[in-house]
Formats: sequence, structure tokens, C-alpha cells
Amino acid sequence: VIRRTWVNGVEQNTISASDRGLQFGDGLFETMALIGGKVRHVERHLDRLTLGCGRLGIPCPRRAELLDEFSRFAGAEGRAVLKLVLTRGVSERGYRIPESLQPTRILSHNDRPNYPAEWWEQGVKVRWCKTTLSGQPALAGLKHLNRLEQVLARREWSDPDIAEGLMCDRRGYLIGGTMTNVFLVRGKTLTTPRVDECGVAGTMRTTILELANALGLEGAVQEIAGVDVAKAEEMFLTNALIGAWPVHQLGELRLPRSTVTRQVQSLLASSSPNRFRA
Amino acid sequence: VIRRTWVNGVEQNTISASDRGLQFGDGLFETMALIGGKVRHVERHLDRLTLGCGRLGIPCPRRAELLDEFSRFAGAEGRAVLKLVLTRGVSERGYRIPESLQPTRILSHNDRPNYPAEWWEQGVKVRWCKTTLSGQPALAGLKHLNRLEQVLARREWSDPDIAEGLMCDRRGYLIGGTMTNVFLVRGKTLTTPRVDECGVAGTMRTTILELANALGLEGAVQEIAGVDVAKAEEMFLTNALIGAWPVHQLGELRLPRSTVTRQVQSLLASSSPNRFRA
Repeated sequence: VIRRTWVNGVEQNTISASDRGLQFGDGLFETMALIGGKVRHVERHLDRLTLGCGRLGIPCPRRAELLDEFSRFAGAEGRAVLKLVLTRGVSERGYRIPESLQPTRILSHNDRPNYPAEWWEQGVKVRWCKTTLSGQPALAGLKHLNRLEQVLARREWSDPDIAEGLMCDRRGYLIGGTMTNVFLVRGKTLTTPRVDECGVAGTMRTTILELANALGLEGAVQEIAGVDVAKAEEMFLTNALIGAWPVHQLGELRLPRSTVTRQVQSLLASSSPNRFRA
Repeated sequence: VIRRTWVNGVEQNTISASDRGLQFGDGLFETMALIGGKVRHVERHLDRLTLGCGRLGIPCPRRAELLDEFSRFAGAEGRAVLKLVLTRGVSERGYRIPESLQPTRILSHNDRPNYPAEWWEQGVKVRWCKTTLSGQPALAGLKHLNRLEQVLARREWSDPDIAEGLMCDRRGYLIGGTMTNVFLVRGKTLTTPRVDECGVAGTMRTTILELANALGLEGAVQEIAGVDVAKAEEMFLTNALIGAWPVHQLGELRLPRSTVTRQVQSLLASSSPNRFRA
């Protein structure tokens, strides 16, 4: 549930109907875990936002200003979600970008999602989505506002026991979940798909790739054919809010092991709680 | 310039910051020419909107209600633009679509664009864009709100003498302009690219394909390799507002002939004015 929203620092829950975020999805977002009034991995979120602004040509707000705004609006609750939407701003009809446009910052403070505790403990059941991800290197990796593919993929199931759907590119290579990145464990290798053609470079994905060595594993970013997923000994899903969920079932495939996922959860917990719930 | 905006029939220029149109680009739009208080080709616009709603799973407003709303807000000016944005509605964070969501209708009344008269008379200068269009059959043809590719392509030039940029798919096949469809004339064939992998099925494109026979030409929808464009004897651009612009220059390529384009302009003028200007 959304509790409060601020637009360019002013508390209000509306934006201009001419905002390019609405007209074209012309903007970026970050969904951040608030833990005890602090944004977890805030520098990683701001790094990705800065990268996205550079690629889209949106002037990025100053980091100090964003950090100041986050801390003013974070509150002190145990667990919550801070979502930032940054659009290119308000303009007339048409794709052309007028000069000296002011970006729109929309910051919302949301309740934490109420996922079942079992999803961290026993693991989650996931499915394959039919909706594919199209390849666009200019946008790949970014958390931009053009999310119709994810919306269509999420429409493919309504069973509340299915936590997530996995998406492939047009060639049948696994890219990630609708709202998560995916990791596979096989032998001493911890693999996650490339996101340079499609997919999102999740902040938790980056964190976990950096943790691979500490787990005695070799982190690898590579292409993973959907059919090769059955060779994985273990699989888990990650995002900024959930940390890591073990996958115990993918369609008909059972994945009983979660040894590495437990280690990942422990390592995340050693810096900040990995269970984003009460 | 936007003159007035109505949201769900009420005059206001703001929408909820939680609208899925903003959060995900989860919606569709139609940009319609108002001529003497009437929407030109209104049935074609509503046909495409209905198709888009069906494919995205957005409940489509009743046609009679939309027509009523268009006529109430059309005004009586000679030339103007009515733009409808239809989003899936307002929801909480996350891609999942809650049950019984009410779509948001945003209708805006805009001044006509002030393109130079020469663009209809002498033709336009266009360029190739480097930004490619990604293939996504689930979205191809629709006028949905995920338009970052067009925004990035339109950012590639600022020279006001260049009217439009042409975009190809990843394989180098011509798809269309950032805001127009493209037609090529060669012999007795009038060809426009397929839009079943990417691109927009423009209302004016459909109209002109239906006019081909009346021009003594064979209309064809096919793949057009970018390198084959040089074989065209004539080229023109179309959309709901402009009707048809002859292309007289594409990069270094000169296209002096505009015989068919003149006939298209005349045929369009016989039902409604083809020059969308004073």
C-alpha cells in the first residue's frame, strides 16, 4: 500500500497528464528496501540511476540531493519500500525533447510486500512465461519505464502459490524473472544471465556476483539456454526487496537443494537483514 | 500547445502518480486529427484502440461513449489535435494487475503542429536513425505507451530542416519513421513495411493501402531491406495528422519524383483536407 508520495520534493499524489513518463514511458525507476529508516544498497541504486540517465540523456539529479530527500522521506519503520520514478519531465505532444526540460522526481513510500515467510525458508514455485523479452541494447540493463513485456508476462498466471515467472529472449535464452534476477548453481560456478540485450541489471544481482568469491564460487555472467536450466543443481531469485528466494520448483522440475542460497541469505543478513518482512 | 485536458471526462490536467500508464507505460494512445470539430477517420482510430485493448487485456471503453466524449471535447476550430491516452488504471506497486481495475482515459485538445507548408508541397528531408526497433510480436502494430525507442531515435538529430528519421529493425529492414509510416513506389507497386514484429499500424497507412487500387497500383506489405530503399522511384511518409509528405531527400539520396504522392494527397483531400495546417 502506498502511504505517501512526493513530487519534486512536495507531498502530492498527482503528476501532470503531460509528463513524458506517462506519454512515452520516458524515464527510469528504482525500487529500494527501507530498513530501519535507511535505504539498503543506496549507492548501487544511485549508480544504476546515474547510468540510466546517461544512456537516456536525462539530467540526473545530484546524488547529495537524492540522498537528502531519501532520508527526509524514509521514516523510521522497520521495513518499507521507497520507490523513485524519474521522468524526463513535462512536455508538449511529440517525441522531440524540448531544451532545458526539468526532470520529474516521484518518490513514494510504500508498505513492505507481504510475501509468505515460507518463500525465503522453503523456497518458491516458479513457472515459465510465454511472453519473451525483445533485444534492445540501448535499453538493456536499465530499469526504465517501458515495462509492458513484464506486465504481459505477469498476466500469464494468477495462482498465488506461484511466486514468479521466468522470461526468455526470442532465442529461448533465460534472462530473468518478471521482477527478479535469476542465479544458477552448478559445481563451483554461480551463473546469472547476461543483461546486455534485454533484462535488468538488478542491484542485488551485482551484490551477489561480488559475494561469489566469499562463497568459494566462481561468479559467471553468461548465456543460459532455457533447456540447460534442468542441469542446475540449485537456483535462486534475487531483487532489492527480497534478497534471495530459493527456487524449489520450476514447472515440473524439482530443485530440492538450497545450500548456496542459504549461504547467500546469511551473507546478506550479515550486512543487512535478508528477509524483507516482519 | 495543449489547450485542455480531461481525465475520465472531468477537466483536469493531472493524473494519479500511481497510474500504471506512468509506472509501466501500461496503456495505449491515439493521436487524432480534428478537422472542423470532427475526428478524421475516427472509426479506424477506435478499431486500433479496440485491437490494442484486446491484446493488452485492458477493458475497452464503449465506442459510443468515446465518440460522445470526442464530440463534446472536439471544439469547432478548423484544425486541432485530439489525443487519447488510455491506461490500465491506478494500482499499487508491482506488475500484477488487480481485479476490477478501472482504466484511465486522458483526452487532450492540442493546437495543430506548425509544420512548414513546403513539407507537403516540395517534400521533406529525412535521415536514417541509428536506434533500432526491437522485435516483439505481442506489441507490434499497437500504439502503446512504451515509446523509449522513438524518443531515443528522435534525439539523434536537432536540425529543424530534417522532418523525420527512418528506423530499421535489428536485421536492417526498414520499418518506418519515428512518428510516421513509410511507403515506397516502384513501377506499379506501392509497398509499405510489415509491422507484425515491430512498428505501428498507422490509421493513415491502412487508409492508403486501401486507396492503392484507386491509384492503379498494387498495394503490398512486405519486408524492405534498408539497402533496397535506393531502388524506390518515390517515397512518402504518412500519419493521421500529416496525411502524406513526399520525401525528396533521404541522407544523400535524392528522390525528385512525387507523382503518386500527389495522387494520394488528392484522394485524401477528396474526403477530408490532406494538409493539416491553416
